[in-house]
Amino acid sequence: MVITNGIANGVRNNLPKGHQATFSSENIPSSEFQERVERVRDGLRAAGLVGLISFGDCWRGANVCYFTEFRPLDGVSDIANAIFFVGADTEPALFVSRQCFHYASEVTSFDVFTFDEMQAKLEGFSGARTGTVALAGEAYIPEDLHRRIRNSLGNLTMEPHPVLAEIKAIKSEREIALIRKASYLTDQAMEAIRETLADGHPHTERELALLADQRMLAGGAERTAYDSMVQAGPRSAFNLARPTDRIVQPGDLVMTDIGARYRGYCADGGRGFIYRTEKADPQKKEIVKAAAEAVEAGLSHGRPGMTASELNAFMQQALVKSGYEQYSSEARGHGTGHGTGMDPEEEAPWIGPGNKTVLKENMVFTLKATITVPGVGGLRTERIVRVTSMGIEALDVYPMELYW
Amino acid sequence: MVITNGIANGVRNNLPKGHQATFSSENIPSSEFQERVERVRDGLRAAGLVGLISFGDCWRGANVCYFTEFRPLDGVSDIANAIFFVGADTEPALFVSRQCFHYASEVTSFDVFTFDEMQAKLEGFSGARTGTVALAGEAYIPEDLHRRIRNSLGNLTMEPHPVLAEIKAIKSEREIALIRKASYLTDQAMEAIRETLADGHPHTERELALLADQRMLAGGAERTAYDSMVQAGPRSAFNLARPTDRIVQPGDLVMTDIGARYRGYCADGGRGFIYRTEKADPQKKEIVKAAAEAVEAGLSHGRPGMTASELNAFMQQALVKSGYEQYSSEARGHGTGHGTGMDPEEEAPWIGPGNKTVLKENMVFTLKATITVPGVGGLRTERIVRVTSMGIEALDVYPMELYW
Repeated sequence: MVITNGIANGVRNNLPKGHQATFSSENIPSSEFQERVERVRDGLRAAGLVGLISFGDCWRGANVCYFTEFRPLDGVSDIANAIFFVGADTEPALFVSRQCFHYASEVTSFDVFTFDEMQAKLEGFSGARTGTVALAGEAYIPEDLHRRIRNSLGNLTMEPHPVLAEIKAIKSEREIALIRKASYLTDQAMEAIRETLADGHPHTERELALLADQRMLAGGAERTAYDSMVQAGPRSAFNLARPTDRIVQPGDLVMTDIGARYRGYCADGGRGFIYRTEKADPQKKEIVKAAAEAVEAGLSHGRPGMTASELNAFMQQALVKSGYEQYSSEARGHGTGHGTGMDPEEEAPWIGPGNKTVLKENMVFTLKATITVPGVGGLRTERIVRVTSMGIEALDVYPMELYW
Repeated sequence: MVITNGIANGVRNNLPKGHQATFSSENIPSSEFQERVERVRDGLRAAGLVGLISFGDCWRGANVCYFTEFRPLDGVSDIANAIFFVGADTEPALFVSRQCFHYASEVTSFDVFTFDEMQAKLEGFSGARTGTVALAGEAYIPEDLHRRIRNSLGNLTMEPHPVLAEIKAIKSEREIALIRKASYLTDQAMEAIRETLADGHPHTERELALLADQRMLAGGAERTAYDSMVQAGPRSAFNLARPTDRIVQPGDLVMTDIGARYRGYCADGGRGFIYRTEKADPQKKEIVKAAAEAVEAGLSHGRPGMTASELNAFMQQALVKSGYEQYSSEARGHGTGHGTGMDPEEEAPWIGPGNKTVLKENMVFTLKATITVPGVGGLRTERIVRVTSMGIEALDVYPMELYW
């Protein structure tokens, strides 16, 4: 195979390392990636950790994309996987499949190795060292890859640790600009749905989801951040579902959960609406209002310096007060927001009860309220926000109370 | 949380199990899913296995989608996971996240449980049993979920086994119709690239990938089967890569790898082309021809009854004969095709050296030849095909030798 061969014959050394092809000014520059490595090294040392094994795959790439523009490709093998390794006192290394080696070498200035070389490299690191390496991505790292890593760590132990998640929860100005663009494209998707339904013709959930996707691509999204959800009528009472051929009926409550991906950065947006509100049971309007008021409570009360738990309390209390407590997972203490940015869902900060994480300027996360009443319908109102020096700024602008 | 609550209070029993919302005639009917379970049970008994743990996620769902229309959603938690469990002598069960429970219950007629209930259910199955449970999806099942399953299996052992992969390699007529549609949409994507370049204006890799995606969605694709690859000039010599802002230059060899997803079924297509061939080094035309001839050798010599290894030999020999052996992973014995259908890449049949799998009517797979010459360029010519009673039928129709 040419790639394996290339490595064996030393072609690696002739590769233009970190060569930036023709990249736009919107790309994250090498210097920013370098700063991030330093920040993580400081975090490792402060936590008494000797290194970080950071796992990302083709779809949940944040743990790798935080350090490099490289993102693995789709597949049922190592093609889909990547490990970024940072030692507290060594040069970082990116491990990818043989098939992705040339691409990875092009887009990062850090050392790139294939998974075939990982064992020897990790054994070289562990050597006579003792201590603990942090693992990021523990919820989704494949068992097969996890085993290969464990077997290469010698006397080191590997433990899931939030050190990376907490550092990358704070976004740079460049990152926020990209998330803002993704949020704008997501708003446009909602507008495409509104315009389509305004023609009065019958439209299916599947058709509306497709139109939303098309509008995001037309605006310059590189893809959707995740598969779009549009659920109408009784299906809007399902927490998560894929769209079907069900035609949206007058009086339906409709749940949508849609996000764009723009140059590696995601939006995660949720809105519900009532289609032909004059035909709807008044309870549906109450549901829409209750979700909007809960999110509004978060937007208006959130401040830097507050804990995630305190921010959650404002929203949770608003939902309890609305009377829909038994129909809302957020009202029942399952959390009213989550980190986002390079993946639609990132681990930190989790906005929920008991989380003492202090909100800091430029943390980016969602604020959400889901109400689902079986047999009636429901929605999830979800905004993407950042913490400013003064409070909370929403990065999307689409209205929350929609009666069409 | 309403969903957890619903289960606790017995709301489950009031759900319309297997209710078919409003589904199109293109959906796989319950009876076909039922037949598939029987086929797998027969396979388990024949192999002396007591059951099958079949893992699928949001992006590699085939092991679950073979049994049910349910496909998990994007996320960094169990939201993205599903397990379909088949005992050789018990009713099957689908395990999903709490958040996906209502959706899953709607689209399958089999029993659905949440992951919270999995341990008790698997312990109930293992009971006093001994023997081996097959695992499908061993290359990508998360370590965390793998551990939870292992801890619930009592005296049973769990081992990776190809029983499911081999059964689902043979597609039904309904499945083939859907794959044919996905292949048609993929052909349209190539045509969109051709039309765009024909205007003579400058176009970037990223722009062409986006136009391909848009054309597939406009034709009715539910999404792309995987992130589209368009690599021009020197980047076409990378086996796999994401598109950049590089402008396609006259004389460039361009690699594309593009596939549509249509109602759960995928195409996986590869074509390369020379842009403004009159400006290109003649070697580039030779590369395009050599890849096409290799795939043509597979298309014309493949027959039912032949082994995968024999089919591979025709293509591998053609590549060796072309003189590009050192620049082609297929020529060097890494395989000239792979299963496809519900995922862009499925485990069986692998068309490669030493694989004694006998080709049977309605097996669906790709036939591919990659040639990548560093500094010059390359392409992957990849067709999606089925075995007929007579030979090999290509399900896509776009030409293989493209000089634009």
